[in-house]
Amino acid sequence: MRRFVIGRGRNFLNRSHQQNLLSSSSSHCQSRFLSSTSVIDSPSSSSMAPTSSPAITVDSLNPKVLKCEYAVRGEIVSIAQRLQQELQTNPGSHSFDEILYCNIGNPQSLGQQPITFFREVLALCDHPSILDRSETQGLFSADSIERAWQILDQIPGRATGAYSHSQGIKGLRDTIAAGIEARDGFPADPNDIFLTDGASPAVHMMMQLLIRSENDGILCPIPQYPLYSASIALHGGTLVPYYLDEATGWGLETSEVKKQLEAAKAKGITVRALVVINPGNPTGQVLAEENQRAIVEFCKKEGLVLLADEVYQENVYVPEKKFHSFKKVSRSMGYGEKDISLVSFQSVSKGYYGECGKRGGYMEVTGFSAEVREQIYKVASVNLCSNISGQILASLVMSPPKTLEDAFNSLEGITCNKAEGAMYLFPRIQLPEKAIKAAEAEKTVPDAFYCRRLLNATGIVLVPGSGFGQVSDRSPALGILGAPYCLKRTRFQRL
Amino acid sequence: MRRFVIGRGRNFLNRSHQQNLLSSSSSHCQSRFLSSTSVIDSPSSSSMAPTSSPAITVDSLNPKVLKCEYAVRGEIVSIAQRLQQELQTNPGSHSFDEILYCNIGNPQSLGQQPITFFREVLALCDHPSILDRSETQGLFSADSIERAWQILDQIPGRATGAYSHSQGIKGLRDTIAAGIEARDGFPADPNDIFLTDGASPAVHMMMQLLIRSENDGILCPIPQYPLYSASIALHGGTLVPYYLDEATGWGLETSEVKKQLEAAKAKGITVRALVVINPGNPTGQVLAEENQRAIVEFCKKEGLVLLADEVYQENVYVPEKKFHSFKKVSRSMGYGEKDISLVSFQSVSKGYYGECGKRGGYMEVTGFSAEVREQIYKVASVNLCSNISGQILASLVMSPPKTLEDAFNSLEGITCNKAEGAMYLFPRIQLPEKAIKAAEAEKTVPDAFYCRRLLNATGIVLVPGSGFGQVSDRSPALGILGAPYCLKRTRFQRL
Repeated sequence: MRRFVIGRGRNFLNRSHQQNLLSSSSSHCQSRFLSSTSVIDSPSSSSMAPTSSPAITVDSLNPKVLKCEYAVRGEIVSIAQRLQQELQTNPGSHSFDEILYCNIGNPQSLGQQPITFFREVLALCDHPSILDRSETQGLFSADSIERAWQILDQIPGRATGAYSHSQGIKGLRDTIAAGIEARDGFPADPNDIFLTDGASPAVHMMMQLLIRSENDGILCPIPQYPLYSASIALHGGTLVPYYLDEATGWGLETSEVKKQLEAAKAKGITVRALVVINPGNPTGQVLAEENQRAIVEFCKKEGLVLLADEVYQENVYVPEKKFHSFKKVSRSMGYGEKDISLVSFQSVSKGYYGECGKRGGYMEVTGFSAEVREQIYKVASVNLCSNISGQILASLVMSPPKTLEDAFNSLEGITCNKAEGAMYLFPRIQLPEKAIKAAEAEKTVPDAFYCRRLLNATGIVLVPGSGFGQVSDRSPALGILGAPYCLKRTRFQRL
Repeated sequence: MRRFVIGRGRNFLNRSHQQNLLSSSSSHCQSRFLSSTSVIDSPSSSSMAPTSSPAITVDSLNPKVLKCEYAVRGEIVSIAQRLQQELQTNPGSHSFDEILYCNIGNPQSLGQQPITFFREVLALCDHPSILDRSETQGLFSADSIERAWQILDQIPGRATGAYSHSQGIKGLRDTIAAGIEARDGFPADPNDIFLTDGASPAVHMMMQLLIRSENDGILCPIPQYPLYSASIALHGGTLVPYYLDEATGWGLETSEVKKQLEAAKAKGITVRALVVINPGNPTGQVLAEENQRAIVEFCKKEGLVLLADEVYQENVYVPEKKFHSFKKVSRSMGYGEKDISLVSFQSVSKGYYGECGKRGGYMEVTGFSAEVREQIYKVASVNLCSNISGQILASLVMSPPKTLEDAFNSLEGITCNKAEGAMYLFPRIQLPEKAIKAAEAEKTVPDAFYCRRLLNATGIVLVPGSGFGQVSDRSPALGILGAPYCLKRTRFQRL
């Protein structure tokens, strides 16, 4: 048995360690399941001496674990926790009186309130027996109650406390696939969706599948989100960096990626995948569509899996930029299942909802063979399933309530411009000729006639469009409804 | 670069595969983070040919993944899902009309209803803004409302949608540690608790820490829960089996464990840990305390980490058997932190609650050095935190509402025997001399006097104990309250 030293494997405490690593290259064991009848072909001549208590020292841990670093929860956070404790036990002991954790995107820890609709639905799904109670009507919105029923009907036996299908509840995956289709304009298959406890486990799952040894490399942007370096280290692979250019707004040049790929190949590294984080973490850029096309083309040409971290898809703040999923981009280039292996990661932790603590997310897996898919399914199944509340939330963020303008535009004879600000919509209603004639008979303008009839029939108070001097007499204006309906519009303010 | 074939690595589809495995034994790279300045000492002379589209084939996946099997969600379940679909699209196509999934302990999928108290608290924590509303009093029990407030006060900023501390919310860990102390009669430290998305990720975490190569072995009971073989395979270690004896009720003999340990050592395996599942899965036995002592002694002597899967601790069905945690057993033997490395796994999925879909659980980690603990913390932090609903539920199952008898016995002047059956308690109330005198002045027996005063003051109807012929005149009897208070008593019927 050979022993060798991994030099400078800095651990969490930033100290050097020397580890004994058992070389596995010479044993061709048929099975790791060592029964009395199984054979180890090459038993080593000298076994490690049995350890004595304490059983485990840091030097005898998995060296991959020692090598892994995770900056966003590393030393700085440990110091912060100590300072917080000191402030608690000894107020005034520091020049500040509270710790603000800006080390990680965790909006609700900084006071952002959750979206009411999402939480109402979650609460109702947690405790469905109140759905039929009259008090519930007063406490929860009708929309939430209706959605909770819809979701419960999608869950076998309405059992929110049961393990689900390993990929997640089928009905929720249907909803998510429909949301992806609506977003991209290209088909999405619920069987491609794997619901996970946030995006991190999905990333780990793909790294676990792709990395065989340290000779396998994963191309990652630098600066990168430390999850990627941590996950690659834990799975024993090699991070192959490509650099984003700060001078050009953290631009991603495929020429740079190509250069790094070639350099890695020259060192004997088999590069298996390219990670792209769009919108960027921690750099905050949004990729242009043509840039995305070049990346897709590159991955296709080089036979790389494209791992698209798209958890910030709802976080776009400038009017001239728009999020395009890599799936949409590749499909719009005419590339389908046979052409490119693509995994898109999404999370409930980001966007306007910021539900980090709920640990919901999914990956959409396309362009892999049925055999590879079986393996992904198997790895997913070892942890049984992701948490059901997170699954429900993932379905909700991919199918939020329609905005009022969407609702108007889905009605026959009504059109409405997009709400861009303020609190109002000014829809246009195409009244039938008979209604216009009836208005004339009553010696009133048609829109006032309509508003009066609507009020008498439903109790809803509108202002006739003619009251605003609008040229057409067919477009009553109305104040927009409360927050749950304004999700899309309020998301920028909330973040 | 050497190539060799792993023979008979059966994958999920039960087919043979031949994989190319890159040997890592000859490269001493200083860092897996391959920057332009980092050096690979031993670049191989021939790199793997770049793959072409499709990027990934099953033969180029991580061979550890291919080797992993997971019986409880394996081929049989896939067939079941197909049959279920066939029954749905073509009723009457089989000789049965529904599929019953008994492949895994998933009680709520088979119709077990969740415990109301737990679900009420979860719903209130999901949507805390209803806590102050008057309708909530009618919908939720006062106990649930009070507990939800308590829990929210333990969460920084009451933010149930924020990432928590990587080990879980400190206040919830305090509650769990107190629950462990009450269970065991020995101290428990909240800093030893790591909250996880069910017990499975905790098991993976320990395997990841302990397994360096296939020369590291983990002793596991056979029959075993397939999570262990799957996790060991995924982390590239060797499962060292010890056999439970069906003839003696699945007895666990340390002589058998010792024999297997020695056999593994002789084959060059460094055995790092012993897994014990108690109560047993899938075998259903409950270990005797003396048997547990022998196991503790064995682990201490051999320097093995004791991995105690104790997720069935509430599932004991015979009066002559009792669950003892391995922590309690080792502490009662006088062994402390310095003597034995012990990890206890607990889950919200089992017990009388069976909340599988909530993915809550924890591990209690004792007897490791501070440096090793830092590494465990780091691995936990890479996934940020477990889901908050699961965390809350884990705290609830370790601190369920007190039974009514406990509540009585905590009141001054009241004692009450344990409820063993039926629907009643018969507590004894020590009335003060003045009350007895006042009763005599009204020419009534003291317990009837008490019951009348209680009714007039509170509206609660009791039966005076004298009405049952009880010799003492100081013990009114009363009917017990509803289900949330009867948790402990009803758990056997519920399972």
